[in-house]
Amino acid sequence: MPHLNVEYSDNLRDLDVDRLLLCLNHALVGSGQFADELDIKSRAAAFAGFRVGIAPTERAFAHARLSILSGRSPEVKRQLSASLLEVLKEAIPARAGLDIQLCVEVLDIDRGSYAKVHVPGYVQVT
Amino acid sequence: MPHLNVEYSDNLRDLDVDRLLLCLNHALVGSGQFADELDIKSRAAAFAGFRVGIAPTERAFAHARLSILSGRSPEVKRQLSASLLEVLKEAIPARAGLDIQLCVEVLDIDRGSYAKVHVPGYVQVT
Amino acid sequence: MPHLNVEYSDNLRDLDVDRLLLCLNHALVGSGQFADELDIKSRAAAFAGFRVGIAPTERAFAHARLSILSGRSPEVKRQLSASLLEVLKEAIPARAGLDIQLCVEVLDIDRGSYAKVHVPGYVQVT
Repeated sequence: MPHLNVEYSDNLRDLDVDRLLLCLNHALVGSGQFADELDIKSRAAAFAGFRVGIAPTERAFAHARLSILSGRSPEVKRQLSASLLEVLKEAIPARAGLDIQLCVEVLDIDRGSYAKVHVPGYVQVT
Repeated sequence: MPHLNVEYSDNLRDLDVDRLLLCLNHALVGSGQFADELDIKSRAAAFAGFRVGIAPTERAFAHARLSILSGRSPEVKRQLSASLLEVLKEAIPARAGLDIQLCVEVLDIDRGSYAKVHVPGYVQVT
Repeated sequence: MPHLNVEYSDNLRDLDVDRLLLCLNHALVGSGQFADELDIKSRAAAFAGFRVGIAPTERAFAHARLSILSGRSPEVKRQLSASLLEVLKEAIPARAGLDIQLCVEVLDIDRGSYAKVHVPGYVQVT
C-alpha cells in the first residue's frame, strides 16, 4: 500500500513513462499520507487495443488508479487525486489533433484482508 | 467515466478486439446512461499468462469490467452488464474443444475523489 | 467468479508464471470456498514500466488481487489472502540485492450486477 496503476492509450507515443511514474510517486510522498516511500508501488501499461467513444476521431486517455488502505477521509482522497492529476497534466501536454482525457480514481483496499510481506534483498558474499 | 477494461485469455486467437470495443461502446451509448459518447474509455488486454481452474483442459475467458461513477441503481447496473454480455457473446461464439467463460462486472468509482481533465487537441497552423 | 489478477514487476526475471498461477488456483480450490474449480479465472501481467518508491534502489513487487462475489465474511477473506500470500512467498524467494514486496488484496464483486455465461466447447465431427 499504496498501489498505483496507470493505464494509457498507446497513441500517447512520446510519453516518458519512467519519469511519469517517478513524478507520481514524488507527489504521493509529498502528500505526507504514506509512512514509507518504499511502500508506493506504481506501474504503467500502454494499451494498443483501446477505443474512446464511437466517433471516428483521434482520441487518447491516461487513467491513474490509486488504491489505498481504507479509512482515509474524502478530503484526503480528493487532495491525492488532485495532486496526481497535476502530474498527469504536466507529463501529457496538449497535442495537435489529438483529444486527450486524463483521469484519476482513488479506491479503498479492504484493510482487514490485505496481506503483505517484505522480502529484503540479501547481500551476496562472493 | 465510464471506464471499460476487457481482459481475455490469448487463446481466443481470432478475436477482433477493435470491433469488440466499438460494439461495447455502442452498447454503452445505447444505454442512455452516459451524457457524452466521448466519455467512454475502453481498452482491452490479452493475457498470455493465464489459468482457468486446475484441470488440464483447454479453457478461455473474457471479462469486461465497467467502472462508473457511484449513484446508479442496481437495476441500471444489471441492464448495463446484461447488454455488455450480449456483445461479448456475439463477438466470441462457441468453438470446438475450447471451454469459454464470458463475464461482466460493474464497479462504482468513488465520485468524491474522481478527478478528470479534458485536453482537446489544438489545430496546428502550418 | 473468482477472478485473480497477478501483477508483478518484470525484474522478477525467472518467475515461473504458469506454475505460480496453477499453485494459486490450487490454494483457492483448497479453500473450499468455490463450488467448481472451473470458475477460477487467473491471469498474470509483468510490468516493464514500474517504480517502487523514489529511492534509487533495485526493488520489485508482486501483487495478487482476488475478486470474489460479495457476501463472504472478513475471516474467510483473511484466510484467502493469507493462503495466496503463502504461495507467492514460496514462488518468489529472497534474492541478492533485490528488495521485494509481496501483497494480496481481496475485493468484492457486486453480486447483483455480475453477469456470466458459460460457452462449452463443442465436439467437432470430422
